[in-house]
Amino acid sequence: MKLVQERKRKEFEKILEEAQKTFYEETEEGKKHVWFRLYDEYIEFLDQRLLPHKEQWVRCYDERDVASAIKSMVVRGAPAIGIAASFGVFYGLKKRVQRRENLTYEVFREIKETLFNTRPTAFNLQKALDEMEEEFKVSGGDIDKIYARAKKIWFSDFLSCYLIGRWGSEVIPEDGFVFTICNTGSLATGGWGTAFSAIKFAKKLGKNFEVVALETRPFLQGSRLTAWELLKEKIPFYLIVDSSAPFMMKKILDETPKSISVLTGADRILRNGTTANKIGTFMLALSAKMFSIPFYVLAPSTTIDKNSEYIVIESRSEEEVKSFGGVQVAPKPAKALNFVFDITPPDFISGIITEEGIFSYPYNFD
Amino acid sequence: MKLVQERKRKEFEKILEEAQKTFYEETEEGKKHVWFRLYDEYIEFLDQRLLPHKEQWVRCYDERDVASAIKSMVVRGAPAIGIAASFGVFYGLKKRVQRRENLTYEVFREIKETLFNTRPTAFNLQKALDEMEEEFKVSGGDIDKIYARAKKIWFSDFLSCYLIGRWGSEVIPEDGFVFTICNTGSLATGGWGTAFSAIKFAKKLGKNFEVVALETRPFLQGSRLTAWELLKEKIPFYLIVDSSAPFMMKKILDETPKSISVLTGADRILRNGTTANKIGTFMLALSAKMFSIPFYVLAPSTTIDKNSEYIVIESRSEEEVKSFGGVQVAPKPAKALNFVFDITPPDFISGIITEEGIFSYPYNFD
Repeated sequence: MKLVQERKRKEFEKILEEAQKTFYEETEEGKKHVWFRLYDEYIEFLDQRLLPHKEQWVRCYDERDVASAIKSMVVRGAPAIGIAASFGVFYGLKKRVQRRENLTYEVFREIKETLFNTRPTAFNLQKALDEMEEEFKVSGGDIDKIYARAKKIWFSDFLSCYLIGRWGSEVIPEDGFVFTICNTGSLATGGWGTAFSAIKFAKKLGKNFEVVALETRPFLQGSRLTAWELLKEKIPFYLIVDSSAPFMMKKILDETPKSISVLTGADRILRNGTTANKIGTFMLALSAKMFSIPFYVLAPSTTIDKNSEYIVIESRSEEEVKSFGGVQVAPKPAKALNFVFDITPPDFISGIITEEGIFSYPYNFD
Repeated sequence: MKLVQERKRKEFEKILEEAQKTFYEETEEGKKHVWFRLYDEYIEFLDQRLLPHKEQWVRCYDERDVASAIKSMVVRGAPAIGIAASFGVFYGLKKRVQRRENLTYEVFREIKETLFNTRPTAFNLQKALDEMEEEFKVSGGDIDKIYARAKKIWFSDFLSCYLIGRWGSEVIPEDGFVFTICNTGSLATGGWGTAFSAIKFAKKLGKNFEVVALETRPFLQGSRLTAWELLKEKIPFYLIVDSSAPFMMKKILDETPKSISVLTGADRILRNGTTANKIGTFMLALSAKMFSIPFYVLAPSTTIDKNSEYIVIESRSEEEVKSFGGVQVAPKPAKALNFVFDITPPDFISGIITEEGIFSYPYNFD
């Protein structure tokens, strides 16, 4: 028994080492992560709207540029948005320093406001900006300390991802299927991801399962981003249209003895476990419940909002529904509803997995 | 009471008259329906793949041309496929007559085979071709009688649509929401449609409801075709991505006192009510069951397959999932599963509505 644990500890260490190598590269030009690069005067983001076909970087000099990158979905994924906004604060302040402006609290508040208003559902964004505000106050606006704090927010997410993967790998079947929606991988976080990290971790531990990736309308993060990451990792998967997930689950259960887990990320989790995540998540939770399939939410604890009772659901432009990959698909005068997130009640969730471990229903994040 | 019924009868007659005017036009050039036009030497189909942006007609001279139009989805919708195939038989035979070939039974079987192999799930197709075979045998291959029989199949569907609409209008809320998937309108049938006919009929009877139309991936018949027909009819509607339907249902039930009905079409219905329909239908049925929302299947009785115990589910090309309108949305090496239909068990279905009336669970179509 001890031998097994020792082996596992070593395996874990090997995996951590590998994770570190993959996701942080210090070059002469700057610090590079898979979706952002830090330079002296600016930050660059990989434009995720153009993936998987084109790798194009968007340069941002201040908080306005960063806010616009977040708003237009150049950067997406709840933890990634928090990290991007933290660096947005730094570059915004740095620009003022270069212009010899005073870094007053009012200046900070203005920067924070601009970044905060980009995406209302992601709680990590609010949390990261609150942390940057604390740093601003404590350090008296010391620009080096502000930079260090942004990096700390990033590294802390990196470590959370590693631990989420470690815990999450336990709920993945040895020989079965994992259903997942949206992109929860390295493109969405400062590390290996949330649900995706568990998938990657389980593969490294030798589990033999296949992924069923939902394409995730309207923005197709599943087709474009998750498929891209899965291919890079050589993890076997099937891409499906979102609405076919309940039928596929039933088909697998009827026709094979294989088991299924559903793993998703989260944009905001309330104290009682109520979870906001990408539209379609509730559909997955509902069918998982109908078929007694375990349904897990994986997210860093920075996603947990302990003080709200209610989640405001973000709607985005109708055009995201009415067009597809840049092609108009509905008649112009048609009216579309585009709630990009939905809410899953806690009793639909078998477990919530953070860096701290696996929590099960009923939830009470105090 | 008698007065009310009298008024209703008159209303029904007015609606039938209107239906007849809208869907059949005899011009000097030929007979014209909304999605096909009959000429002496050929039939033309409105290319539904190009809607709603472009109205382009595809000319078909024989059964091979018609088969290819069905296979490539120029024509789609279970009842429409049956009608198109019937005329396909006629034009196939006519071409042989012009070439002074003998209309042997072998020739007929060859034509039937070509048309039958286009879409395995639609039962109306099989039924229509069997009817044409009977006509061929009885008439000894009389080309005029073959043409008359194809027209009869069309008119019979036209009348079914009218009656389906009449019965179906009864299950539509006076002031609420109707969820529907795919296109079940005049583009899919020889008349006003199946589920769509009920929607149109209920509007003409003055009911005050809104439609929630699912976009229907991968082929987007909801966005492209249903939205187009709803706009033409000035029926208020919201277009949504498929996976948001369960959340929208919950949101409506939580936030308003309005009621909801779900109405869909069918491609094949077994004797016990098991229904194959567009992928996503099972998702709708499952969430309707969870929320105690009535879920209805509307189809002409030609969709009912009394002799099978099992439905073969059609998968189509992976490319339909991985791209749209020529735009690739997933990495090329990604593997997609494209089951275009799913199966809804009879106990998920509150009612099956044919031209004969409203049937309720348990079903036994003998």
